[in-house]
Amino acid sequence: MRSTQVRLARRPVGEPQDSDFEIAEAELPELEDGQVLLRVIHLSLDPYMRGRMSDAKSYAEPVGIGEVMVGETVCEVIDSRDESRAVGDIVTAYVGWQTHAVAPAAMTRKLVDPVAGLSTYLGVLGMPGFTAYAGLLQIGRPQPGETVVVAAATGPVGSAVGQIAKIHGARAVGVAGGPQKCRALIEEFGFDAAIDHRAPDFAEQLAAAVPDGIDVYFENVGGHVADAVYPLLNKFARVPVCGLIANYNATGPAEGPDRVPEFLRRVLTMSLTVRGFIQDEFVRAHYKDFLRDMSGWVADGSVHYREDFVDGIENAPAAFRGLLRGTNFGKLIVNVSEPPAA
Amino acid sequence: MRSTQVRLARRPVGEPQDSDFEIAEAELPELEDGQVLLRVIHLSLDPYMRGRMSDAKSYAEPVGIGEVMVGETVCEVIDSRDESRAVGDIVTAYVGWQTHAVAPAAMTRKLVDPVAGLSTYLGVLGMPGFTAYAGLLQIGRPQPGETVVVAAATGPVGSAVGQIAKIHGARAVGVAGGPQKCRALIEEFGFDAAIDHRAPDFAEQLAAAVPDGIDVYFENVGGHVADAVYPLLNKFARVPVCGLIANYNATGPAEGPDRVPEFLRRVLTMSLTVRGFIQDEFVRAHYKDFLRDMSGWVADGSVHYREDFVDGIENAPAAFRGLLRGTNFGKLIVNVSEPPAA
Repeated sequence: MRSTQVRLARRPVGEPQDSDFEIAEAELPELEDGQVLLRVIHLSLDPYMRGRMSDAKSYAEPVGIGEVMVGETVCEVIDSRDESRAVGDIVTAYVGWQTHAVAPAAMTRKLVDPVAGLSTYLGVLGMPGFTAYAGLLQIGRPQPGETVVVAAATGPVGSAVGQIAKIHGARAVGVAGGPQKCRALIEEFGFDAAIDHRAPDFAEQLAAAVPDGIDVYFENVGGHVADAVYPLLNKFARVPVCGLIANYNATGPAEGPDRVPEFLRRVLTMSLTVRGFIQDEFVRAHYKDFLRDMSGWVADGSVHYREDFVDGIENAPAAFRGLLRGTNFGKLIVNVSEPPAA
Repeated sequence: MRSTQVRLARRPVGEPQDSDFEIAEAELPELEDGQVLLRVIHLSLDPYMRGRMSDAKSYAEPVGIGEVMVGETVCEVIDSRDESRAVGDIVTAYVGWQTHAVAPAAMTRKLVDPVAGLSTYLGVLGMPGFTAYAGLLQIGRPQPGETVVVAAATGPVGSAVGQIAKIHGARAVGVAGGPQKCRALIEEFGFDAAIDHRAPDFAEQLAAAVPDGIDVYFENVGGHVADAVYPLLNKFARVPVCGLIANYNATGPAEGPDRVPEFLRRVLTMSLTVRGFIQDEFVRAHYKDFLRDMSGWVADGSVHYREDFVDGIENAPAAFRGLLRGTNFGKLIVNVSEPPAA
């Protein structure tokens, strides 16, 4: 079986270029015992992938030059040498940017009676939804009446953060880029307020939208959004640090002065909690609760989601570049092949 | 009754000068119902007082120009118009840098059967000891076999942090200024390792002293000590932020580049918890446990402490300036008047 693959051709300097990727075909090996052959239906594109393209120290190994770009997928099993998986099973698997793959059956998760479209298991019912759920509830711990601010708020993590905050009785304020996204935050996702971070008076608008200050800032972006948020944090505020997309393409040190002393002074005087996390630390204790809660919320309409589809694995690099620039709207999914007929 | 007072004459720019203080006499008002007249025996000098001299936003109101400098004291009650306090009682009270004071009886805490000298209730058995106890155990949460690093380690907070960490089965590494203090960390306080932050190869020495990385960094100082510590933090490390003495005298923005993006990237990729705190948030839940535990540890010799005495309220400004430069050694106490004969 041949697989069309998107590989890392070289490490990007700053914003990734098309030439940092290469598209090539590979002959997959024969199945061994315990393995399955997968046809990729949907591929998830996520900001964290920018980190894997660099070789700076991080929470995960970088993708090697010439290796297939990593990523979560929804696949159909088209051949199996493992009792637990049958041909026709639909699974999620971390096989990356390619059309077909051989994987250990044990590394796949079978979808049983999905409550929504298959692609949602890469978004609201998958890793991004769980990231929002675990980071907000385990670190942010919003209390009824508190104010939660989240940036990249129309993204799959941000939109879930705001909606889960509302379900828990907090006020949700979203930050997004442009009036169209801000309108969707109010009308589609039910946020209490939405602020356009591109507005020249963004910081003033944000301050006006949080008359009682900010108790939880779910950090997805860093940069000038964070600069506006931190002075508004209340005493004992919590900052789950989930992502820093504003910095991912940085090519060198940021312009001075050094604001670390000021940052730490604020942490001290306001008794802030700043806590980085990757969702996997919470999987064992909280994934089951997540699947139950979020499936219920999606099914009964209390959590909405939006998806942004791109067709064809060969278009993944351009779509990913757009994701880093914020040009897409909703969970970015590559349709790699047709889902099976229902 | 007249009181000799040290007042804030003007807000310091950078390091405080003698001329930022003024020494003056005041006639105290007559006692009203519910009040006590206090003779100050010991005054505590602590780094946080530098913050109160500035009018930047902080966790407490600044001292006003012309007002008495704030601070915790041990006092003898020499007159009382409250049933709960008798002449001759020994109390702690937050009456500041002066020889006598009128205070509400309800704002004093009576010392009953003290287990050690009265001055210890300003140090190891007082606010600094409680700061160490609460910050280390509630935020740092050291586990047996983990590595705890603390700077300003011969100070009243730092020395308690290291010794409590040891009692809880962790490895204690102290950072201090100069070979004399480092020797005391090992010989007097029982730390496992001591590093002189003035050494030109300080960062390399620290790295060599923590072969398993750092799980808890109790932050008292910031500055170049923190710069050496952060790259050594393990995944899921905890950083209780208790003080930032290296920055207290800063007069303007720190030299670039801006390292906030790098700092937050580390928080994210290493799943760090950075948590500022002031001890008072933990008083209600943990002060009784502290008094019981720490009194026991002091009495049985498992926690040692060192005190550094200065005689005379008029010498408080110079002693305080030395404290900010790190020239003292141990809990800095001003002997304001003689303790009562035993």
